[in-house]
Amino acid sequence: MDVRLMKEAGMTVCRIGEFAWSSLEPTEGYYDFAWLERAVALLAENGIKVVLGTPTAAPPAWLTHHHPDTLATETSGRPAQHGNRCHYNPSSTTYLRYVRRIVEQMAKRFGTDPRIIGWQIDNEYNRVDYSEDTGRRFQAYLKEQYGTLEALNTRWSAAYWSQTYADWREIPLPIGPHNPGLMLEFRRYVTRVWRDFQHLQCELIRQVAGDKQWITHNFMGWFDGFDHYTVAAELDFASWDWYVGTGHHNYLDSGLVHDLTRGFLNKNFWVMETQPGCVNWAENNNMLNRGEARTMAWHAVAHGADALLYWQWRSAPGGQEQLHGSLIGADGNPRPFYSEAATIGKEFAAVANQVQNTAPVNKAAILHSYDSRWSINAQRHNKALDPLDILRRFARPLAASNIGLDVVAPGTDLSQYKLVIAPAIAVLSEAESAALQQYVNDGGLLVLTVRCAQKDSANALFSTLQPGPLRETAGTEVEEYFALDSEVPVALALPGQVAAQTAGSLWAELLRPLNESTQTVARFGECNGWLDGGPAITISARNENGGQVVYVGALLNEAGQYALTSWLLTITNMQAAWPQPVEGVEFATRTDKDGSTILFVINHTRSSKEIALPQGEPFTDLLSSNSYQDVLPLEAYGVRIFAR
Amino acid sequence: MDVRLMKEAGMTVCRIGEFAWSSLEPTEGYYDFAWLERAVALLAENGIKVVLGTPTAAPPAWLTHHHPDTLATETSGRPAQHGNRCHYNPSSTTYLRYVRRIVEQMAKRFGTDPRIIGWQIDNEYNRVDYSEDTGRRFQAYLKEQYGTLEALNTRWSAAYWSQTYADWREIPLPIGPHNPGLMLEFRRYVTRVWRDFQHLQCELIRQVAGDKQWITHNFMGWFDGFDHYTVAAELDFASWDWYVGTGHHNYLDSGLVHDLTRGFLNKNFWVMETQPGCVNWAENNNMLNRGEARTMAWHAVAHGADALLYWQWRSAPGGQEQLHGSLIGADGNPRPFYSEAATIGKEFAAVANQVQNTAPVNKAAILHSYDSRWSINAQRHNKALDPLDILRRFARPLAASNIGLDVVAPGTDLSQYKLVIAPAIAVLSEAESAALQQYVNDGGLLVLTVRCAQKDSANALFSTLQPGPLRETAGTEVEEYFALDSEVPVALALPGQVAAQTAGSLWAELLRPLNESTQTVARFGECNGWLDGGPAITISARNENGGQVVYVGALLNEAGQYALTSWLLTITNMQAAWPQPVEGVEFATRTDKDGSTILFVINHTRSSKEIALPQGEPFTDLLSSNSYQDVLPLEAYGVRIFAR
Amino acid sequence: MDVRLMKEAGMTVCRIGEFAWSSLEPTEGYYDFAWLERAVALLAENGIKVVLGTPTAAPPAWLTHHHPDTLATETSGRPAQHGNRCHYNPSSTTYLRYVRRIVEQMAKRFGTDPRIIGWQIDNEYNRVDYSEDTGRRFQAYLKEQYGTLEALNTRWSAAYWSQTYADWREIPLPIGPHNPGLMLEFRRYVTRVWRDFQHLQCELIRQVAGDKQWITHNFMGWFDGFDHYTVAAELDFASWDWYVGTGHHNYLDSGLVHDLTRGFLNKNFWVMETQPGCVNWAENNNMLNRGEARTMAWHAVAHGADALLYWQWRSAPGGQEQLHGSLIGADGNPRPFYSEAATIGKEFAAVANQVQNTAPVNKAAILHSYDSRWSINAQRHNKALDPLDILRRFARPLAASNIGLDVVAPGTDLSQYKLVIAPAIAVLSEAESAALQQYVNDGGLLVLTVRCAQKDSANALFSTLQPGPLRETAGTEVEEYFALDSEVPVALALPGQVAAQTAGSLWAELLRPLNESTQTVARFGECNGWLDGGPAITISARNENGGQVVYVGALLNEAGQYALTSWLLTITNMQAAWPQPVEGVEFATRTDKDGSTILFVINHTRSSKEIALPQGEPFTDLLSSNSYQDVLPLEAYGVRIFAR
Repeated sequence: MDVRLMKEAGMTVCRIGEFAWSSLEPTEGYYDFAWLERAVALLAENGIKVVLGTPTAAPPAWLTHHHPDTLATETSGRPAQHGNRCHYNPSSTTYLRYVRRIVEQMAKRFGTDPRIIGWQIDNEYNRVDYSEDTGRRFQAYLKEQYGTLEALNTRWSAAYWSQTYADWREIPLPIGPHNPGLMLEFRRYVTRVWRDFQHLQCELIRQVAGDKQWITHNFMGWFDGFDHYTVAAELDFASWDWYVGTGHHNYLDSGLVHDLTRGFLNKNFWVMETQPGCVNWAENNNMLNRGEARTMAWHAVAHGADALLYWQWRSAPGGQEQLHGSLIGADGNPRPFYSEAATIGKEFAAVANQVQNTAPVNKAAILHSYDSRWSINAQRHNKALDPLDILRRFARPLAASNIGLDVVAPGTDLSQYKLVIAPAIAVLSEAESAALQQYVNDGGLLVLTVRCAQKDSANALFSTLQPGPLRETAGTEVEEYFALDSEVPVALALPGQVAAQTAGSLWAELLRPLNESTQTVARFGECNGWLDGGPAITISARNENGGQVVYVGALLNEAGQYALTSWLLTITNMQAAWPQPVEGVEFATRTDKDGSTILFVINHTRSSKEIALPQGEPFTDLLSSNSYQDVLPLEAYGVRIFAR
Repeated sequence: MDVRLMKEAGMTVCRIGEFAWSSLEPTEGYYDFAWLERAVALLAENGIKVVLGTPTAAPPAWLTHHHPDTLATETSGRPAQHGNRCHYNPSSTTYLRYVRRIVEQMAKRFGTDPRIIGWQIDNEYNRVDYSEDTGRRFQAYLKEQYGTLEALNTRWSAAYWSQTYADWREIPLPIGPHNPGLMLEFRRYVTRVWRDFQHLQCELIRQVAGDKQWITHNFMGWFDGFDHYTVAAELDFASWDWYVGTGHHNYLDSGLVHDLTRGFLNKNFWVMETQPGCVNWAENNNMLNRGEARTMAWHAVAHGADALLYWQWRSAPGGQEQLHGSLIGADGNPRPFYSEAATIGKEFAAVANQVQNTAPVNKAAILHSYDSRWSINAQRHNKALDPLDILRRFARPLAASNIGLDVVAPGTDLSQYKLVIAPAIAVLSEAESAALQQYVNDGGLLVLTVRCAQKDSANALFSTLQPGPLRETAGTEVEEYFALDSEVPVALALPGQVAAQTAGSLWAELLRPLNESTQTVARFGECNGWLDGGPAITISARNENGGQVVYVGALLNEAGQYALTSWLLTITNMQAAWPQPVEGVEFATRTDKDGSTILFVINHTRSSKEIALPQGEPFTDLLSSNSYQDVLPLEAYGVRIFAR
Repeated sequence: MDVRLMKEAGMTVCRIGEFAWSSLEPTEGYYDFAWLERAVALLAENGIKVVLGTPTAAPPAWLTHHHPDTLATETSGRPAQHGNRCHYNPSSTTYLRYVRRIVEQMAKRFGTDPRIIGWQIDNEYNRVDYSEDTGRRFQAYLKEQYGTLEALNTRWSAAYWSQTYADWREIPLPIGPHNPGLMLEFRRYVTRVWRDFQHLQCELIRQVAGDKQWITHNFMGWFDGFDHYTVAAELDFASWDWYVGTGHHNYLDSGLVHDLTRGFLNKNFWVMETQPGCVNWAENNNMLNRGEARTMAWHAVAHGADALLYWQWRSAPGGQEQLHGSLIGADGNPRPFYSEAATIGKEFAAVANQVQNTAPVNKAAILHSYDSRWSINAQRHNKALDPLDILRRFARPLAASNIGLDVVAPGTDLSQYKLVIAPAIAVLSEAESAALQQYVNDGGLLVLTVRCAQKDSANALFSTLQPGPLRETAGTEVEEYFALDSEVPVALALPGQVAAQTAGSLWAELLRPLNESTQTVARFGECNGWLDGGPAITISARNENGGQVVYVGALLNEAGQYALTSWLLTITNMQAAWPQPVEGVEFATRTDKDGSTILFVINHTRSSKEIALPQGEPFTDLLSSNSYQDVLPLEAYGVRIFAR
C-alpha cells in the first residue's frame, strides 16, 4: 500500500535502513535482514531503486548498555544518553569493531544486489567526543602534525599566558575558548575522526560492491563541525539534508547552500532529505506554503541537484519525530502535502531526459574555508559579525542578478573563473595563497573583503599586515581594522559608475595603497577619527594578463553591495542567465558537455509576474509544452523550463 | 505578643512545623517537642487552632551529612546541596526510614490532640531524583505497566531511531528530550513516587488520629511535576499556595487556579499560603496595592476556599526568606499589611455562618489533563503554543461572563454539566474517551479545540486522524494541523449570531466534516494555500439526547473567543451568576445543599463602579448590612456579599 | 627596536613577567632568568624602569599536569582547564609550595636590583575554588569567626528551613542562593584566601627588597569577588586595570572607579593597564575615538593616577589575545594608536614636575561596602535594582557639578568631610555604625538612601526598622520598603529650593519621622495605596555641632537627583573645582601639601566649547604655555592644565 502510493507519486528512489540497527541486529551477533530483503523486493517490483543507509548513527541499546565505552563523552565529562541518536564516540575502538561487523554483513548481503544503487554512510555526522581517549588521540595527532613540541609551542605562541607544553600529554582538549592554534587543530582533528570513521565503512562496501554501487553521505549545509572538503573527498558524490525549519524559503540564500554542496566535489549532488511541508525540531514548525515546495524542488535541480528525496515518508506512531512532516500520516493515508510531491514527481519524470547529464557551469566563484570560519567565529571581535553573513552579502546581489556561482575551497584551481570573491578568508595556507596569486597572475579578478588573509595555517597572525602574503598582489595593505559600534559613511567613486554615498557597519578596514598604480575607489566618511577620509576600497593595477585585486575594506549595506556588484560585473563582462533581473524570479541554467543549455525560470513569490521575452523564436516550456513569445506570464510559484 | 496580634487580626488557624525538623529532632533519635507543645498551647489559649506540617521537606544537616544517599541526584549527576529545602530523594530507602520515624513521633504526640485540627504532609512536592536507584525503580515500574519488553517496544515505536530495548536495565531516565512514551511514563513514575511518599505519612497519622484530624497537602497551582489527581486522592481536601509574584492579581486567570485545586477532589479547598503583600523570590517583588489582598481573599472564597492563611507571619532575622512579605516585621511590630489582614479577618468572622457549608455549583466544566500538558509541552511544535494558554483562552470569556467553571480531569463523570470544554486534551486514554462519548450521548455539548485527541495513553499517535476515537462523535476529522507563522483570517458564521471576521494565530487545524449533518460554522481565509477557505469550526448534528460536539480548529484572538463563547452560552442556555457582565467586576456564587445561594460581588479594579440592580427586593450586604435598590455603588476594590 | 619605540613614545615604565612562569621555570626547578635579565638591561639602558609581575596567575602546564590538585575546582565539581589563566586553587598547599619557590627565586635575583622599581603580585585576583579542601578550610574559618555552632546557628537563623548545624563539617559551600549569613561569610572567606595568597608573596619580596621596591596589585574596578579594602591593606599603593570594552568613555562614571581605587588605601594609585584603542574580550571590541584616549589619560591623572600603562605593547602572533589592542602590530611596526600614546607620553613628561606630589583633596565622600553589595546582590528584591546604580545616581550629579569625591569604606574616619553619602549601605557593623554616628555628631551631613542599614554584620535583619542603629541619629525610620513595578510621583519641597514634581522608580521607602523636629522635605504621590502622600525624604534637626541626616526614601530620576544634589551642596556650602558646570567638560584639581593646586580642564566631548574665565590674571596652560583671558576655547577632546 505504502509502496503503491510511492509509485503513484512518481517516486523512483527510496532510502532505507539509516537508523535500523536495532532491527538489523536485534541482539549481539544475530542479524535479521529478512524484513529489509522484503522491503527491497517490494520497492524493486514497483520500479523504485533503493539507497541503503548504514545504521551507525543510532547504535542499539544492547550495544551501549554492554559497552558504555562506546558512548561519547560530553564536555561536562558525562556520557551521552542512549536514545537520541549520535550517542556514540566515533573513534571508540570498541564501537568501530561493531560498526565494522554490521557494515560487513550489510555489504555482504546487499553489496552485489542490483536493486541497491548506492549507499549512504551513517547520517549527518556531528558528534564530538571529549573523552580522555580522545585527548590521547588528539595529542598523537598533534605530534604527527608538528613533529616536535618546540614547533608546536612556537607556532601557537604558547609562551603567551604560560601555556608552553613540555610533554604531549599536557595538551588539553579545548572546551570553551582557548589558544587559537589549539582550537583550530582540534577542529581538524575532528575532521580526521570523521574521515577515518567513514573510510572504514567505504572500504568494506567497496570491497564487495566495487564501483557498481555509489557511496554518499548526507551533510548538513553550513554546519561547520568538520572540514567537509576533506570528508567528502572519498565519496562518489555529496548529498545534503535541506530543511527550512521556521519560516519560508529564500532562494537568494538557499541557492548558495546547494552551490556549497556541489562544491564539495565539484559535481552534481543529491538532496537526500527535504521537508514534506514542515519539520518538528524548529521553534515554530510552520508548513511551507502550498506550491512553495515545488519551486524549491526546481530550484535545487537548477543548482545541480540530481535527486530530491522527502523525509519522512510516513509518520511513525511514536518516536521523537512523531510530528515531523510526512507524506503519509500515522493513519496510512496521504496527507495534503502528498499531492504536491506527486506533482513534482510527475514533472521530474517529464523532463528527466533533457536535464540528466547537465550541470551548472559558472564563471564566478566564491571561496569558502572551514579554517577561516572556525578562526573568525572563535574571535569575532564584533559579536554581530558572522562570516557567513559576509559571504551572503557578496553572494546575494550576484544571485539576484542571475549570475551562477560556484562555492569552492580556497586551494582549488580557479582557472575557469573570471571573478573570484574571497569573503573573510582569514586563514590562508601557503598553498591557498599561491593558488590565489596564480589566479590573479593568469588574469582573474579577485575580490578580497574585510577579515581577509590575517592568519597562517596555525591560526597565528601573519608577520605582515593584511592581506599578508597577498599584499603585493593586492597592491594595498590594511593599516588598521575596526570593529564598528556605529555606521560609517562610505563614498563610492567606482570607475565607470555614478558616484554614490552609501554606508558600512560592523567592521571597517583602513586601507593603505602600496603604490601609485593602486586606485582608491571608495573612501570612509567622518566616523571615529581614525577612518575619516581614508581609503575603503582599492583596486590594483591590471597586470600583464589583465588580473586585478579589489580590496573591499567595508561591510556595505545592501545598496552599497549591489552598486559594488554591478561594477564588478562590468569589469569582468560577466554574462547572466537572463539579461534583466526580475524581483523574486530566478533564472538559472544547466549545461551539458555539448553546450546545450536548460533554462529554469522560477517565480519564488506569491505574486504573478510578466517577463518580457527577447525577439526571436518562441520559448517552449518543457513542463507544459506551451510556447511563449514577447511575454512570459508566470503565476505565483510558477515554474517554466526551456531548452535553449 | 505575637499570638495576641494574631488573635487581634481575627486569625483562627495557624500552620506550624513544616520546616522544623532540625528543631524537632536536633540530633538523630533525640526528639524535642517541648517548644512545639508550648506553641500549640499558647495558640489554643487564644482560640487559634493548629495545622501541623510534617517537616520532611527540609531534612536536617545531620541527616544529609551522615546519609548522603538521602540527597537527591540532579540531572548533572551531582547530589543536591543541603540548605535550600527539598534536597532529599523522596524514594530513598534510607530517607523514608527517617521520615517514618519523625512522623511516627509527631503522630504519637499530636495525633489525638484536639487542638490540632489537621495535618499538612511535607510541603509543595517538587523534587525529581535522577539517581541510579531511581533508574532501577523506574525500570521496575515500566515492567509493571507493560509486562513485556515487546509490548513496551511496540507501544513506544522503539525501533524508531534504534531504541528497541532487549533488557529492562537498558532503559534510561529521560534527561532532556527523548522518546515520547518514555517521557510520559517517567512523569507518571514521579507521580507514583509522590503518591507513595505521601501514603507512608498519611498511614502513620491515620493510625493514630483516625478521622479526627484531616490531612491535606499544599500544592502549587499549575505546577505539573506530577499528576495531582492521583496524589490528591488520598487527602481529605486539597490546598494550594497562592502567590502572585511580580505584578498584580488578575481574577480572570486566578479564578481558574482555585477551580483547578477544587477539582482535585471536587470539593472546597484551602489557600494554605498567600502573600502578605509581596514575596521574595520573583524578579520584582512588588507589593500588592492597598485593598487588593482583600479582593483576592473574597475571590478565593467565592471559588470555594474555606480558609486562607498568610505566609509568613513574622520575618525571621536570617534565612533565605528574610525579605518575604510578613505581617510582623523582624522588629516584632505589625507591618502596614497587617491592618489589611485584620480587616479580612474581621469580615470572614462576620459572614462565616452564612458561607460555611456552601460551595460553588457549576454547569460548565473545562478539562485538564497532566498527560496532555506533558505531551504537548515536550513537543509544542510551535514554541509559543502553551497548552495552559489554550485553556485560559476558553476560560477567560466564561469568567468575564460570570459563568462558574469546574476544572476537572477528563475521565470524570460529567453528567452534571451542560457544557464541557476540552482544551488541547491531546492524550486520551480509552476510559477518558469513553467518558466524553457518554457525556455527549447523554445530551451534553462538548467543545474540542486544536491539539485534541491526537495520542493514546502511551503518547503514540492514534491510527486515525484527530480527534481519534472521538471522530464519529464529533462528526469531523482533522485533515491537517498547522503551526502558524502568521495570522490566519477566520470568518465566523455561527448560527444565530451575526457573521463576523476574526483571526487566529499560532495553530490551525483544517477540518473535514465526516457527513452532511455536520455543519461548518467558520472558515479560514487566505493564508498558506492549504487552509484557504477550509472549515475552521464545525458542529455535529444533535443526537437523540440533544448532545453535540463543536470542534474549534482555530486559536482565535480575544474578540473571536468572546464571540464563540457567546454562541456556546446561547446553545446551552447557560445561566450566569449575574445577567450583565461589568468589566473588572466579578459575580460568583456559592450554594448550600438546600439551594440557598451567596452572591459575591467583587470590584477587582481601582475605579469605582455602579451596577444596575434588578427590580424587586433590596440587596442587603452581609458585610456592612447596607441595603441597595436600583443601583449598587462599588468603590475601588469594593466587595459586597448578598444572600439570595 | 621595540624598546626604541617605547622610548620614543615617552614611556618611562614597563611591566613584565606577569604571565611568564613557563618561560621563567620551563621545567620543574630549572629557572631561566637570562632572558628577563636581558630585557631589564635593555629597558634600563633606554631609561625605562621595570615593574616585575609575579607570574602566579598562569601556572605552567608541567605544574598542573603533575599536580592536578593545584587546579581549582569549579562549581560543577570539575577541575579548571589548563591554558586560560587563573586555573589554580589559590589555597592549594601544593600550589603555594610552587608559588613560594618561584617568587623566592625572583626576589633573590631582582629584589635588590635598582632597575626594578616595584612588583605586581599575581594578576587580577578572581578565581574561587569549590574543592572539598576549600570546604574544610571554610568550616575552619567559620569556627574561628563564630567560636561555637550555637552562635553561628543563632546569628544565621539556621533553624529556618531546618539548616541548624550540629557539626562544623555539615556546613556546605554555597553554590547558588543559600542562607544569607553563609553567603556573606563565604565572600569574606574568599577575601581571606586572597589576603593570605598575597601575603606569602609580599613577605618573600620584602625580606629581600625591604622598602626599596614597592608592591602593588592590579585590581579590576568594581569587581566584587572579595573585599578589596582588606586585600589592599598590605600593598604600598593600589593599581587597577581600566578597560572600556564595548562603547566609549563616560567620565561621569569612570571618575568614580578611579576614586574607588584611590580609596583602597586613601592615596594615589596607578592605572596598571589600559586599552590601546580596543580590547578583544568584549561583545563588540570597537576602537576608542581618535583623541579619546588622551582625555582618558588626563582624567585618570586628575583623579589621582600617578602612572598609566598601556596593555599590550605588541601583538603576539598567537595566544588568546591576538586581537587585543596594542601599540605595535604583529609586524613590529607602530599601529595608528601609537601616535596617540606618544602624544600622551610627551605631555606627561612636560608637566611631571608640577603634578608629582599632588593628590585630589575632597570634602565630599561616598561610602562603598562589599558586605552591602554582596548582601543586596544576593537579594535584590527588584532584579533591576543594582546597588552600584544607586551609588552612581548619587555620584553623577556631583561629578557633573565638578565636586571631587572620595569613595571610602564605611568604617573610615570621616572627619575631613562635610558631606557623606551612604548609598545602599545595607549591612552595617557596629564599628561602621559608630563611625557614621560620630561623623554626624561632629557636625557632618550624612545622606542615607534606600536599602540603608537593614542588616547586621552576619547579614541578619536588625531588630529595629531601617536605618537600624542609625534611627535615632536620622530622626526617622522606614515604615515599609517597596520594590516598585511602576513609577511613583515625588513632590519635592526642599527648603530654599523651588518646589518641584519629580518621580522615582524601582524602589521606595515610606518614612516615619521619629519626632517633630525631623522635617519631611518630599512626599510620594498617588501610587500603590501604601505610599500615597507619605514622607519620601526627611532631614533631621541640626545637632549641637550642626550635624544632620537626610534620608532619601526614593530612587529619583535624573532631574530629581540633580535637584536633590543642588540642595545638598547648598546646605553644606560645598566648593566646586569650577563655579559653573559646563556640559561634558570636567574640571578637577590636585593639590600638594602646601595647598598649591593644579586644575585640569578636560573636554570629554567631540564638540568644541568656550568657557568664560573669571576676571583676574590670565590662565596659562602648562601643556601649550598659551595664556587665556576672558574666554578659554576648548577644541573637541581638548585638555588644558593650569597651576592655580
